[in-house]
Amino acid sequence: MAKSRLVVIGGDAAGMSAASVVRRRRPDMDVVVFEKGAFTSYAACGIPYYAGGQVADSAMLIARSPEEFRKAGIDVRMRTEVLAIDLVARRVRFRLPDEAGESSEPFDQLLIATGARPIVPPIPGVEATGVHSISGLQSGLDLRRELDAHGQGAAVVVGGGYIGIEMAEALRMRGCPVTLVEQASQVLLTLDADMASGVADRLVAKGVTLHLGEALTSIQTDASGRVQAVVTEGRTIPAGLVVLAIGIRPNTLLARDAGITLGERGAIHVDDRMQTSEQGIWAAGDCAESWHRVSERPTWVALGTVANKHGRVAGLGIAGGEARFPGVVGTAITSFYDLEVSRTGLSERECEASNIPCTSVTVDARTRAHYYPGQTPMRVKMLAAPDTGRLLGAQITGGPGAGKRIDVMATALHTQQSVSDLLDLDLAYAPPFSPVWDPVQTAARVLIGKLGRE
Amino acid sequence: MAKSRLVVIGGDAAGMSAASVVRRRRPDMDVVVFEKGAFTSYAACGIPYYAGGQVADSAMLIARSPEEFRKAGIDVRMRTEVLAIDLVARRVRFRLPDEAGESSEPFDQLLIATGARPIVPPIPGVEATGVHSISGLQSGLDLRRELDAHGQGAAVVVGGGYIGIEMAEALRMRGCPVTLVEQASQVLLTLDADMASGVADRLVAKGVTLHLGEALTSIQTDASGRVQAVVTEGRTIPAGLVVLAIGIRPNTLLARDAGITLGERGAIHVDDRMQTSEQGIWAAGDCAESWHRVSERPTWVALGTVANKHGRVAGLGIAGGEARFPGVVGTAITSFYDLEVSRTGLSERECEASNIPCTSVTVDARTRAHYYPGQTPMRVKMLAAPDTGRLLGAQITGGPGAGKRIDVMATALHTQQSVSDLLDLDLAYAPPFSPVWDPVQTAARVLIGKLGRE
Repeated sequence: MAKSRLVVIGGDAAGMSAASVVRRRRPDMDVVVFEKGAFTSYAACGIPYYAGGQVADSAMLIARSPEEFRKAGIDVRMRTEVLAIDLVARRVRFRLPDEAGESSEPFDQLLIATGARPIVPPIPGVEATGVHSISGLQSGLDLRRELDAHGQGAAVVVGGGYIGIEMAEALRMRGCPVTLVEQASQVLLTLDADMASGVADRLVAKGVTLHLGEALTSIQTDASGRVQAVVTEGRTIPAGLVVLAIGIRPNTLLARDAGITLGERGAIHVDDRMQTSEQGIWAAGDCAESWHRVSERPTWVALGTVANKHGRVAGLGIAGGEARFPGVVGTAITSFYDLEVSRTGLSERECEASNIPCTSVTVDARTRAHYYPGQTPMRVKMLAAPDTGRLLGAQITGGPGAGKRIDVMATALHTQQSVSDLLDLDLAYAPPFSPVWDPVQTAARVLIGKLGRE
Repeated sequence: MAKSRLVVIGGDAAGMSAASVVRRRRPDMDVVVFEKGAFTSYAACGIPYYAGGQVADSAMLIARSPEEFRKAGIDVRMRTEVLAIDLVARRVRFRLPDEAGESSEPFDQLLIATGARPIVPPIPGVEATGVHSISGLQSGLDLRRELDAHGQGAAVVVGGGYIGIEMAEALRMRGCPVTLVEQASQVLLTLDADMASGVADRLVAKGVTLHLGEALTSIQTDASGRVQAVVTEGRTIPAGLVVLAIGIRPNTLLARDAGITLGERGAIHVDDRMQTSEQGIWAAGDCAESWHRVSERPTWVALGTVANKHGRVAGLGIAGGEARFPGVVGTAITSFYDLEVSRTGLSERECEASNIPCTSVTVDARTRAHYYPGQTPMRVKMLAAPDTGRLLGAQITGGPGAGKRIDVMATALHTQQSVSDLLDLDLAYAPPFSPVWDPVQTAARVLIGKLGRE
């Protein structure tokens, strides 16, 4: 009897987590992974830091090589792009490397872990030399190589999300004059405007020219096809290098074409075991939906942490177990130089969009005891349901030690705690770490007062 | 009709928190505070940093002066020591400042916030000039003044608890050769030995000579009565300055003499409103017990955070409200140079002492993504109940960003989460802040495996 076969499409965090779990738990199964690129299990989130030079060697970004996976008994097929999924015949069709034609492979179970791809706007000049999107490790290698050649020439970052902010830092650290263009009226749309303004101030303070509320209209090139300038609704910005960081989308063409159900946000719809609408067809990582424990509806989150958890749960399910993905609460963090920025739960904007009533406060505090050296300003925004006092979300900006405090709220959100519960917590205090009342609890106290719950 | 009168004994965190709450909520009440020292609401936890010079000015340690409290309508009597509490007559007897005799004052309600006092061992020479205990802001001023005169002479710290470690750092930062003597076989007895050994290594690495398992037997003095050497069971250590940091005890003589019930640990027994065994007599801060939410029995914690919460709850109760102290989970944090050390819940030692079955793991990880600059080693110990997987406690040592991660476990302990719940959390991840799996979750994963719960 032939061995039962798992085919995995995509050899990054989600796919390889699942493949590894299945390999360990089910020696009786074949595990085949198709990866269209040249790398497995690389740290996509590390690419901006590699580009900026804080990470010297791209090899450091690779957690485990194809050879290591093969040694562990996983049949990894590199530079092999899956072209179609046949749900009836239970086969995938793929293109062999080096233009060696096409072939196909049967599966008993299939995991789709095709990740996400950057949004590239359909404007003139977007394909010009010197215009980069961040998409996979190869794009990071390309960007770094060009940056090394580009030197300290002017650069434009289009998009003020996490990647845009991180790339602005990377380019500033290399000495480039940097302009950041964002179509919305603020950076970091996952924050509310009153919190994002502090990040914008810091961008400007570190020498980034910021143009908010301006959409990109075209990219000007020279005769050789190289970028010369970025054109927005308001101005023309000369630049020898452009990073497009407008956003990403789940990479779901294969799934859609196969007739697998997608969700509202375009990601593959899954149940809490990470199984799709089709029996034995699973999805995990940036291409798949996640349950949001606060809004209590499916959401789409493209983060390495979530991808790893998705992959683990899918792997356990494929292996015959009963693991369930617990859902997310919307936690994210980034930094720009020494400013730390984090958020969890729902923002005011998200509450409004979902017609969820919320009351919020924004509190200014310090990261450490007011008398202890190195204390910095820290701002906490906190949101709660006006009727029950249930915590709905939080946002933090501040110096070293500020950002990871969001984990307290992430933990409290996980079990539907109220702001009164937050005030009751026994959090760690010593002068080098916090004021006597942690800023998180100061925010909770002010919010309790506003809610009239004391 | 006379106004109802609250008398508060002790003008530090707990006493002044309560007094302020009552002042705001009950304009109809008289609020009288007796403070035997010369300062109100000072940051006791800041004293080692003032001694070491990181905090330049002692005025920075005072949150609010007696004059400020008086302006707010609180009758603060400084340098006025309460001598006795008469529960029948409902009066306190006190000594007036400047040897102006004794007097007494009636009360309707009384708050005892008499704090803690350092343990001074009954050994020869303990009263010598140059031997310091840390007890109140005045002791910090005295120590700093002497250190300024002492220069970089040899110093001995007796006791390896939080204050001992912090004083060792302060003295090293001033350039003194420092010897630390600890009677137990490890420093920081609130940690288990496998975690404390890392702290000991760091002490030695920073030039502290460490003698563990050696009790102090006497202090040698010169003809003028000045300290010359510290004598232990094993050796004689020459030193011109000695800091005794053996421990502290709740300051409960007044309460005991008045017939108020004390608990097992010698602190004043209170209910969850902070009321003592006597109606209308309250206690708060370092002199009072706290409920431990994990061991589910009374405990004694002397920390500024707890004192502030005690004071707030007592104040609300005195004002006629119904606030309840939620209890502690045993969280604490300190640092020695750039090593951060924190703990929460129960240690293995505490579990054994209380016959609580526990399973533990100790996991080595890094504070940041392995490729991100500035990442440092981080060790997490995690304990859970073998039958239910319920989290019982955690301990952390590591570089910048390690220590405050204990707050995740403190939050999870507050609502009796299991280690599986910890693994499910949506914690903040980006390369400058964490590996993809936060070390806390790595520990949870290993512990789940050891418990056989996956």
